[in-house]
Amino acid sequence: MASGRFLTSSFTRRLVARRPGSGAGIIGGGFRKNASVLDLSSEISCPRSSVLPSSAALPGLLGFVGKSSPVLKTMKRPSHLFTHQRLSSYHSSQHSLTSKKGVISFHHGSTLHVDAPHNFSESGRYRVACQHRDQLKHARRIIVKLGSAVITRTDGCGLALGRLASIVEQCAELQNEGRDMLIVTSGAVAFGKRKMEQELLMSLSMRETLSPKDPLKGDEVKSLLASRASAAVGQSGLMSLYEAMFAQYGVKVAQILITKPDFYSDETRKNLISTINELLALNILPIINSNDAVAPPPELAEEASRNLDIKDNDSLASRLAVEIETDLMILMTNVDGIYNKPPSVEGARLIDTFNPAMIAELEFGEKSNVGTGGMDSKVKAANYALQRGTNVVICNGLSPGAIKGIVNGRKIGTFFTTEVKGQIGVEALAKNAKKGSRILQSLTPAERSSIINKLAGLLVSRESDILEANRKDIEEAHQSSLTPALTSRLTLTPSKLQDLADGLKQIAVDSLTILGKVQKRTKIAEGIFLKKITVPIGVLMVIFESRPDCLPQVAALAIATGNGLLLKGGKEASNSNKVLMDLVTEALATVGATGAVSLINTRDEITDLLQLEDDIDLVIPRGSSELVKTIKEQSRNIPVLGHAEGVCHVYVDKAADIGKAVKIVRDAKCDYPAACNAMETLLLHRDIYENLHDFDEICQDLKKEGVKIYAGPRLSKCLTFGPPMASSFKTEYGDLQCTVEIVDSLEDAVEHIHTYGSSHTDVIVTEDKAAAKQFLNSVDSACVFHNASSRFADGFRFGLGAEVGISTARIHARGPVGMEGLLTSKWIIEADAAVVSEFTAGKKTYLHQTLPLDESFDQKSAHLEDDIEVDASDKSSY
Amino acid sequence: MASGRFLTSSFTRRLVARRPGSGAGIIGGGFRKNASVLDLSSEISCPRSSVLPSSAALPGLLGFVGKSSPVLKTMKRPSHLFTHQRLSSYHSSQHSLTSKKGVISFHHGSTLHVDAPHNFSESGRYRVACQHRDQLKHARRIIVKLGSAVITRTDGCGLALGRLASIVEQCAELQNEGRDMLIVTSGAVAFGKRKMEQELLMSLSMRETLSPKDPLKGDEVKSLLASRASAAVGQSGLMSLYEAMFAQYGVKVAQILITKPDFYSDETRKNLISTINELLALNILPIINSNDAVAPPPELAEEASRNLDIKDNDSLASRLAVEIETDLMILMTNVDGIYNKPPSVEGARLIDTFNPAMIAELEFGEKSNVGTGGMDSKVKAANYALQRGTNVVICNGLSPGAIKGIVNGRKIGTFFTTEVKGQIGVEALAKNAKKGSRILQSLTPAERSSIINKLAGLLVSRESDILEANRKDIEEAHQSSLTPALTSRLTLTPSKLQDLADGLKQIAVDSLTILGKVQKRTKIAEGIFLKKITVPIGVLMVIFESRPDCLPQVAALAIATGNGLLLKGGKEASNSNKVLMDLVTEALATVGATGAVSLINTRDEITDLLQLEDDIDLVIPRGSSELVKTIKEQSRNIPVLGHAEGVCHVYVDKAADIGKAVKIVRDAKCDYPAACNAMETLLLHRDIYENLHDFDEICQDLKKEGVKIYAGPRLSKCLTFGPPMASSFKTEYGDLQCTVEIVDSLEDAVEHIHTYGSSHTDVIVTEDKAAAKQFLNSVDSACVFHNASSRFADGFRFGLGAEVGISTARIHARGPVGMEGLLTSKWIIEADAAVVSEFTAGKKTYLHQTLPLDESFDQKSAHLEDDIEVDASDKSSY
Repeated sequence: MASGRFLTSSFTRRLVARRPGSGAGIIGGGFRKNASVLDLSSEISCPRSSVLPSSAALPGLLGFVGKSSPVLKTMKRPSHLFTHQRLSSYHSSQHSLTSKKGVISFHHGSTLHVDAPHNFSESGRYRVACQHRDQLKHARRIIVKLGSAVITRTDGCGLALGRLASIVEQCAELQNEGRDMLIVTSGAVAFGKRKMEQELLMSLSMRETLSPKDPLKGDEVKSLLASRASAAVGQSGLMSLYEAMFAQYGVKVAQILITKPDFYSDETRKNLISTINELLALNILPIINSNDAVAPPPELAEEASRNLDIKDNDSLASRLAVEIETDLMILMTNVDGIYNKPPSVEGARLIDTFNPAMIAELEFGEKSNVGTGGMDSKVKAANYALQRGTNVVICNGLSPGAIKGIVNGRKIGTFFTTEVKGQIGVEALAKNAKKGSRILQSLTPAERSSIINKLAGLLVSRESDILEANRKDIEEAHQSSLTPALTSRLTLTPSKLQDLADGLKQIAVDSLTILGKVQKRTKIAEGIFLKKITVPIGVLMVIFESRPDCLPQVAALAIATGNGLLLKGGKEASNSNKVLMDLVTEALATVGATGAVSLINTRDEITDLLQLEDDIDLVIPRGSSELVKTIKEQSRNIPVLGHAEGVCHVYVDKAADIGKAVKIVRDAKCDYPAACNAMETLLLHRDIYENLHDFDEICQDLKKEGVKIYAGPRLSKCLTFGPPMASSFKTEYGDLQCTVEIVDSLEDAVEHIHTYGSSHTDVIVTEDKAAAKQFLNSVDSACVFHNASSRFADGFRFGLGAEVGISTARIHARGPVGMEGLLTSKWIIEADAAVVSEFTAGKKTYLHQTLPLDESFDQKSAHLEDDIEVDASDKSSY
Repeated sequence: MASGRFLTSSFTRRLVARRPGSGAGIIGGGFRKNASVLDLSSEISCPRSSVLPSSAALPGLLGFVGKSSPVLKTMKRPSHLFTHQRLSSYHSSQHSLTSKKGVISFHHGSTLHVDAPHNFSESGRYRVACQHRDQLKHARRIIVKLGSAVITRTDGCGLALGRLASIVEQCAELQNEGRDMLIVTSGAVAFGKRKMEQELLMSLSMRETLSPKDPLKGDEVKSLLASRASAAVGQSGLMSLYEAMFAQYGVKVAQILITKPDFYSDETRKNLISTINELLALNILPIINSNDAVAPPPELAEEASRNLDIKDNDSLASRLAVEIETDLMILMTNVDGIYNKPPSVEGARLIDTFNPAMIAELEFGEKSNVGTGGMDSKVKAANYALQRGTNVVICNGLSPGAIKGIVNGRKIGTFFTTEVKGQIGVEALAKNAKKGSRILQSLTPAERSSIINKLAGLLVSRESDILEANRKDIEEAHQSSLTPALTSRLTLTPSKLQDLADGLKQIAVDSLTILGKVQKRTKIAEGIFLKKITVPIGVLMVIFESRPDCLPQVAALAIATGNGLLLKGGKEASNSNKVLMDLVTEALATVGATGAVSLINTRDEITDLLQLEDDIDLVIPRGSSELVKTIKEQSRNIPVLGHAEGVCHVYVDKAADIGKAVKIVRDAKCDYPAACNAMETLLLHRDIYENLHDFDEICQDLKKEGVKIYAGPRLSKCLTFGPPMASSFKTEYGDLQCTVEIVDSLEDAVEHIHTYGSSHTDVIVTEDKAAAKQFLNSVDSACVFHNASSRFADGFRFGLGAEVGISTARIHARGPVGMEGLLTSKWIIEADAAVVSEFTAGKKTYLHQTLPLDESFDQKSAHLEDDIEVDASDKSSY
């Protein structure tokens, strides 16, 4: 760890500068009108002139840092421009990010050293790497190291342009956001090889090129294409390519070539660091490479063991990262990150968060074909930087958008942190849930029921604790100006808790019979008995918003059905959720199954949680239809139980009783307009419309309730002064609004519902039984009602007990889903050495006799079986 | 259409050249040793010297085609290189792709015109555009037009490098495959804008740049950034960027700038075409752009109406495509293709295959912000090229891999074809299936049953037709040297057909009760009755390999359950499938539901079919586990029913009867080793291993059956001369091989099964009832057996009737799946003006009384209801 000194004497000699807005120099990205200009911080204690660069590498020209001293070449430029650049880049301010807990977790600026002390990296600045991925978004200075495997094509000749362009694009965008970006690149060798290959071909004779022997495969050629020469050849081309690409984003680049001795010599290192800092201050992106053309072999020149030996670009990047106080170093390679074993070995698992203490657990494989640094060297380099306050992510440079993803806190690659204990990862929670699920299954139904009853009791006895925590959430909600509707959903009251406890007791009763229920029993043959029983699905993840009462309810459902459960609650209810979760854990502890239910309190994004397809079997979003929709879109491999939309229709048939129609339409729309089972479209048979009295009665009633009506095209055409046109028949208003349209027949109504509906709930109002039957048969929705409000589509109203949700999917569960939706089945055969081959050989015969579900009937109905058997043996003959 | 002339006099004056292997000139892509060199075709009728280019644009230098005549600039190059290039490029041969039916659908070569006739595009070559996407892979000459929106960033300044690099990558790879690629590019304006913006900034005073008013937003600036000037500024930079990028793939490029008059003047056009053809023959990729710096406004210079007026790059590309006889033109824009309405309008649908007759049905929206050509101009340009023998695809340049995807026949963008009628698209088939499904549902069970019986009858009565078609398939299989195992699966016999017919008759019986079955009945309250009934899932897609007997079986299952069905059979069984499908259609015709089942005989890839999430509700792959695995991986939004793997275990407990163990192990492994329910791993309790006799008996028996044994690590450690080590516990051998391992306890066995198994089928052999119970309870697999062979895990053996497949999923259906797997449910309420608000207001009370499933019992049990009601009304109080 870096020493804890803060504000040493050298600090007063530093100028901490931040570039304004989206880019510093006028050369840089777009201007921002509100950019603060010449905002000099009070920390500046030296005249500005003294910090002007002594060895500036300017845009458009290349600043070589040679073996001893920087070499400068100057291009013709209007001189006022140069002055202006300097000034606009030296807008000064200081940014220090101090966490709420009072620990300084970030304190950093673009630092210009005029006369830096020898050990720059421990120059007194207190730097500590951050501990969570989501803090990476605050990283101001980022170094990206591109491994050869990332930018080289698989054939080893030439650059992988697509990838490279994407990396350049991301770096440029981050730079233009106001960050300092640095690139340490490999790839000159690959570039050079391609060029040399061409030159070589050109110097071959006609005969040689026409000979069937490939002229590029000989030994002579190989030596020609040796790395060092290729590097020299490729260097200029590579740089001009980078320059051309970055120019597209208005980002100027500078080239810096380094050899190891440059780094070890105090003077050249000082020059180097100072040059880089100057470049950064000028908003120029330094592109750094080892000077392969002159680099001595790695055996030479060992340095004191305290510092990282520079063997490859990984260690080079790491040393640089420390010296110039980078917040984040991204090492891009061709594997996804650090694995616990070589990735090709069975059981290898990508480590998401790595701390140096874990190094002993790792096994490293062979290094990649293209690069020079293996994974162990990467880990060493990463640890070096980490211990000195730079976060490191090792990731796959082949996956698109990796750099921006990492900076945005996404789970990409392996994140290095010094935190040893910390939070349990979600994978571990999921594995605990799986284990917990197995413990729950091994209990008797009475034991499972007792956990739920215990929880119900705790909800009442710990009322004051719960309400206290809930009060905190409500206070914070007021401060963050949450909408009243959301705040009301967030609020718990003693009566709400009592209702919750009552509901849980009902679940406890239902839980006595729900699991291990026999669904089917068959006597396959003499002595071979098959049964199908209900078993839990496995591990569920329930994602819920604001309402904290969701937590104990869902937990009870999971315990009743023997499922493991991961809960991801809304941030706004975090205090309430925490207390409620403690109660669940307390209840589970009575049977030693505390792991079965967990509240995810890591900062993982939902997108990342939805990747855990090996650990989670079903995702249930409980909340707004936007939440459900988002989850459905993001979950690629885990099934999602929920309804996407609720565009429900009420069709008023020509044979409708208008009184009933008015009553049903009012209830369907106005009882709770935000619900997914509320009516969105009212379809009127043309006869109803043409009977002016009927039409008026329905519309007047809706108007009286304050419902805003939109007309479909046909209604619109009929009315001279009608309501406004509906923008779409697919609209789910979720409010006191609805679409009204005319249909010519029942078939027409069904066609409309199939075209624009969401197969949720649709209603016919009619006195004509034949019409009702036709509608109920032909409308293909989860719920189809005759003369009943669409609002009945609800688990409680259906008598299913607690509701898991409403599904508009066509497989597994459809419509309101009770506990059955959390169950799957298992087939069990009990026999005495039953083998298939005896049936194939004709020695035995299949009976396939259906047995009563209750095994205790087996004895009683023994004589009955004989009757069935005769019939069944016929079937088994084919 | 082009005239039908073929081999006119001008033809004899043409030299048709093909470049060998992966690229022609030595400058081009990698060499191939077997490339045929100097393979002169018999068609050459003029001395080679006469065809040498008069106006060659060489690699590394730019061939400007100015207003009147081509301008050439030459760079220094070794002269022998030039000579060699020419020679190696003029290796001559001719390729003509003639379809099997004898119609010449492709006839094309890189053509060098010394003295081309005026109307080059109708020069006597008979060119017809191909009719299916999968023929595009034969396209030798491809022109790619990049719209401004594709290569420009959204801010309009600068190029979208990532996209551009990817396009360059694809073009270069296609070029290196030996195709002739041309690029018509926009984008110089965007490039120039970026450069001019910078220059402008540099000429501003300090004060101007520091003023809060954005100096780049003024009118003065806008005029400075005008298109024409920007184009001039950008041209050179754009080209050098292209050149740098293509150089990475060893592809040389040439720049050609065209104005409209160049095209309309006979002389300049002749020069232009000749130059382009020469470039292509030299394996140089021409990059074509309109000469925006000098281009006259579009009003000027109208041409004869016979040809397409050149208004924009689309029409430019189209004219060029025709003139140089391109096989394929790809117009890349920023929308996915042609929609029937503007994409933002509701109901807009992407048209996959477009023919010119459809143009009347289209509505076009506003053109894009960036480009000059709207969608209507694209369609006109596309039609022009299409009518003259060039296929066109309009696609979204923003989607990655589009060019290579199109060339590989993938459904990307809108494909233009002249075929008007042709095959019905899969979407239409799916819609028919949906309609057919509704017809099937409207039938009585007896009617559905009769269709299946009819089909069963046809299978027998048309035996000879079926076997005749099957014989053709078998013959073709022999010719294509299919493996004997596959051929045997392909083969139909009279007895197989009879079995099939018998099976169908059984399905017909089962179908009488399967659909509309009441699963639950509840009296919600007085006068409100709820029931849950079985309904079809919707439209199924079944993908099956070799076995043609699958077709009638699956069709019968779909008809029985009222589902629509799309079948995609293996190519190897196409004749058999066709005849069988005809029988299905004949059977369906008896009730007028022919659309319900269709055989997909379009050339669509399975990947594309799996995109039809709106039309298909469930995918069922029937075949090898590789097939299932591939389908599962590819299907992102349609659920897949099937088992991924079958790693089944037999655990021989310490309390096992060895005789039974031997019998069960032998059956589980050897009865049919390729089945997914065959044993892959044998787990032996340590006691069994240590009783040398028991261990030997089991192993000897397996050896006798020819089973190759692999040892797990523990067994390996115990044996001095043991069998070879198993490479993994997760191996599904699917053959007479298995892994044997020692476990220390039943818990250990369960742990092993959970760690390495696939939750398919696992078996315990034991005489200890408590151990058996523990195993059956704790092993979390679809099927768990006690003293029975794993081979019993099968729908037929379970007595489910016809088997749909075996599922290892945890939702919907698990284990062997019968017809129930093809069903979902629908909730129906029948009431008399029931509204929720009356319950909320306390006017009515929920009863939630479970009713017997058979409605006819309602009357009888009237007095019984009263008893239950008391209990239920308690529940409804909360």
